[in-house]
Amino acid sequence: MKRTSFAGMKCSVAQTLDVVGEWWSLLIIRDAFLGIRRFEDFQRRLGISRNVLADRLDTLVGQGILRTVPYQEHPPRHEYRLTDKGRDLYPVIAMLRQWGDRWAQPGPPPVLVEHLDCGRTADAVLSCSHCGGELTARNVQATGTVVPRQREQPTPVA
Amino acid sequence: MKRTSFAGMKCSVAQTLDVVGEWWSLLIIRDAFLGIRRFEDFQRRLGISRNVLADRLDTLVGQGILRTVPYQEHPPRHEYRLTDKGRDLYPVIAMLRQWGDRWAQPGPPPVLVEHLDCGRTADAVLSCSHCGGELTARNVQATGTVVPRQREQPTPVA
Repeated sequence: MKRTSFAGMKCSVAQTLDVVGEWWSLLIIRDAFLGIRRFEDFQRRLGISRNVLADRLDTLVGQGILRTVPYQEHPPRHEYRLTDKGRDLYPVIAMLRQWGDRWAQPGPPPVLVEHLDCGRTADAVLSCSHCGGELTARNVQATGTVVPRQREQPTPVA
Repeated sequence: MKRTSFAGMKCSVAQTLDVVGEWWSLLIIRDAFLGIRRFEDFQRRLGISRNVLADRLDTLVGQGILRTVPYQEHPPRHEYRLTDKGRDLYPVIAMLRQWGDRWAQPGPPPVLVEHLDCGRTADAVLSCSHCGGELTARNVQATGTVVPRQREQPTPVA
């Protein structure tokens, strides 16, 4: 069943989801960030049918998020690596993971992240490119949309 | 058709996608961040069937991401507002939008974001909670997974 495409929407969130929002695609990209490169390894980790995996990998290659790199000539075999466009999805994966750590995954976080530049286990913070302060739903205002934000009394995020 | 649930996976990305990864759900959440609250308004903006919209809204309420607030008694009507759990998805939406601005949406960004604390139009940067430096796919190391990261020569992200 072909689902509705978001491609016609003038919205960058919709455009992104149209590219990576298919069921399984973001988990494939997650695994690529963890170093998985080969079809059999994706397949074993995800427990996904070979048909669906092949379809998703083809789409991600077609979108320029993964690229194929030969690793064997006889018989010809290739592996999948993130492109720059794909690596640029890191913040999306990081924030999905962090939300899940807090709100969806039972128990302690299954994965910790070390920031190699400072050597510390780190949380990711969404920061302002100008002042460095945190960006939250409470202190931003979107412009360019048809819907002005309805302001509420700020309440602390629990 | 019921799709495979990711709920059994010990991974916070999968758990998050199991909650919000259904087609349309993140666009509903996006609209909630833009101030949309009523069924008819979601329906008009998304151009989605009423059945699918009702199903997604029910799921998001059931997951505690949206809550219903009555706004009319006769006949009874309610609107949908983000909970703290829902508002905590802001970084996910922000990073999906920003990736789309760069890689998927033709033309200039349809939406700009002002950081109210500093008053400037801002990009979102993923920062380290310890040192404040940027977190990228190139300078982090995940631990706690079964797959050690395969290190490559760093190359600048285009």
